[in-house]
Amino acid sequence: MNLSNAMFDVIKHDLEALEEELLVAAESPVEIVQEIGTHLVTAGGKRIRPALCLLAAHGGPGFELKRLLPLAAALELIHTASLVHDDVIDEAGTRRGVPTANAKWGNQISILSGDYIFAQAFRLVTREDYGNYIYHRLAELVGDLSSGEIIQNRQVYMASKDEKDYYSRIQKKTADFLEICCELGCIVSGMSPEDTKRMAEYGHCIGMAFQITDDLLDIEQTEAKIGKPAGNDIRQGIVTLPVIRALKESPDSEELEAIVTDSGMTEDMVTRAIEIVKASGGVEFAKEKADEYLERARKALPESMPEDIREAFLLVADFIGERDF
Amino acid sequence: MNLSNAMFDVIKHDLEALEEELLVAAESPVEIVQEIGTHLVTAGGKRIRPALCLLAAHGGPGFELKRLLPLAAALELIHTASLVHDDVIDEAGTRRGVPTANAKWGNQISILSGDYIFAQAFRLVTREDYGNYIYHRLAELVGDLSSGEIIQNRQVYMASKDEKDYYSRIQKKTADFLEICCELGCIVSGMSPEDTKRMAEYGHCIGMAFQITDDLLDIEQTEAKIGKPAGNDIRQGIVTLPVIRALKESPDSEELEAIVTDSGMTEDMVTRAIEIVKASGGVEFAKEKADEYLERARKALPESMPEDIREAFLLVADFIGERDF
Repeated sequence: MNLSNAMFDVIKHDLEALEEELLVAAESPVEIVQEIGTHLVTAGGKRIRPALCLLAAHGGPGFELKRLLPLAAALELIHTASLVHDDVIDEAGTRRGVPTANAKWGNQISILSGDYIFAQAFRLVTREDYGNYIYHRLAELVGDLSSGEIIQNRQVYMASKDEKDYYSRIQKKTADFLEICCELGCIVSGMSPEDTKRMAEYGHCIGMAFQITDDLLDIEQTEAKIGKPAGNDIRQGIVTLPVIRALKESPDSEELEAIVTDSGMTEDMVTRAIEIVKASGGVEFAKEKADEYLERARKALPESMPEDIREAFLLVADFIGERDF
Repeated sequence: MNLSNAMFDVIKHDLEALEEELLVAAESPVEIVQEIGTHLVTAGGKRIRPALCLLAAHGGPGFELKRLLPLAAALELIHTASLVHDDVIDEAGTRRGVPTANAKWGNQISILSGDYIFAQAFRLVTREDYGNYIYHRLAELVGDLSSGEIIQNRQVYMASKDEKDYYSRIQKKTADFLEICCELGCIVSGMSPEDTKRMAEYGHCIGMAFQITDDLLDIEQTEAKIGKPAGNDIRQGIVTLPVIRALKESPDSEELEAIVTDSGMTEDMVTRAIEIVKASGGVEFAKEKADEYLERARKALPESMPEDIREAFLLVADFIGERDF
């Protein structure tokens, strides 16, 4: 998904300054640390998280780019660090078409570089004195990201049919993050507590829709389109919303369950599982859920917001709904 | 080394409360996360870092245990998290006689648990509002620990003869940490800036001595005594102060260099390397350096400190000098 178009036009200048800020954060007196850091922050991130933070801050009365940048950059760094550790865990060779840190420098350096980037994020936010609550939320975020991954890791090949488990997992993995981006941007720019709460709800809802759509693409799309083989989640033993729906509703649910609980599944089995999920209406079901979240997101936007910022947030919701990359 | 004796008697009660605090920090609504967290914080840590922080705080006019505990616990958690990641990197099976997290739950869970514990440390310190400087120092600490490990990782089997490189490496790895423990304890209990600076110098110096002594033990001691095979650093391609000295001064320096740069070295070669180092006087040289640091540490202690606290800090320096476990 190319989110870096129309909807973020209004903060184009801010996003350019953000790139500078990220490069500065990657600086280190140690050559190899700087080399790795620079590779990581320039490896094609879509900057959705800092963009949401900056956009949300524009909705408040006291927007000041210089004051917002360390926070926005820290949010991107936390995302980057968590991807670096995910890539070690998944033994991924490329991400966004670029070699991963583990492929380039090995697991040891990648684990340490992830730690370094986490630390740089927390160091960066102390440049502006944002106060205790913001530090608390950022620490909570990192804790939730990692415990969310631990839960997912423990549930693989278990074909849990509990939708609540799924929602709670994607909330920790994605929705809480986008919520925090919106919330903290609002706080720093002095938005009222009531409107900040509405923007946090917006962030939560687009986060849920974003992850449901992302999970859907794994079922719907061809390898050529998404740059990785379809059915990757199934292969890794992770059940997503359309699969859960099929496990409950499909006439072939027993066959599907046998496949998704088999850690030695063949490629033919993956193909068959996708077929069953598609035939069960699981894809449409998940799309509806994503649309419900997007509708909730649109309704959450505060009335008081400047019209161009409100428009941009509506476009973000539209793009997530039409996501097809 | 059993540091938990006489010298920490004066804060015995504080250290009991610390154990409680650490267990609370390991709590999680997610069962497996709590299980791992509890294992990690109860796996036999010596609590040297929080003990130094608490002891230093007793030197100030405004000691209040409740206010100090989150900081002291956070320091231990940062140490714990960094050991968890080190154990993944070193593929260690046990630490302090207890199975490592990676041996028990695998690398994936261990990487994520380390991240979780880092996050809990940063979350914990937001319970008391310590102010920006303390957050900044803690973030800096995590950054230095990981970049220090990256440097060490890149220099293995290179037989660097530069003493300055060695000192800079052990400073990042150990001395900065003990310095920060002392410094932050003093700040929170309201010690004067001048005396805080002296205590930071004390922490730096005992940290340098501590790491030099630790490195020495790897050369001097038998497996039975230190619970791991002697010469472990040499085997891993890490040159420490006595080896650097021997590389510069020994008549057999060429033979030694050929061994320590050979990543496929045999056990006989390790034994021979230790022999060369011992014959070169490298051990005595390193001991002298450690003693110099300890003398600097003793001199740094502020005059104004309560006598029992001062005595405890002198005992800490003595113990590091006599270290023989």
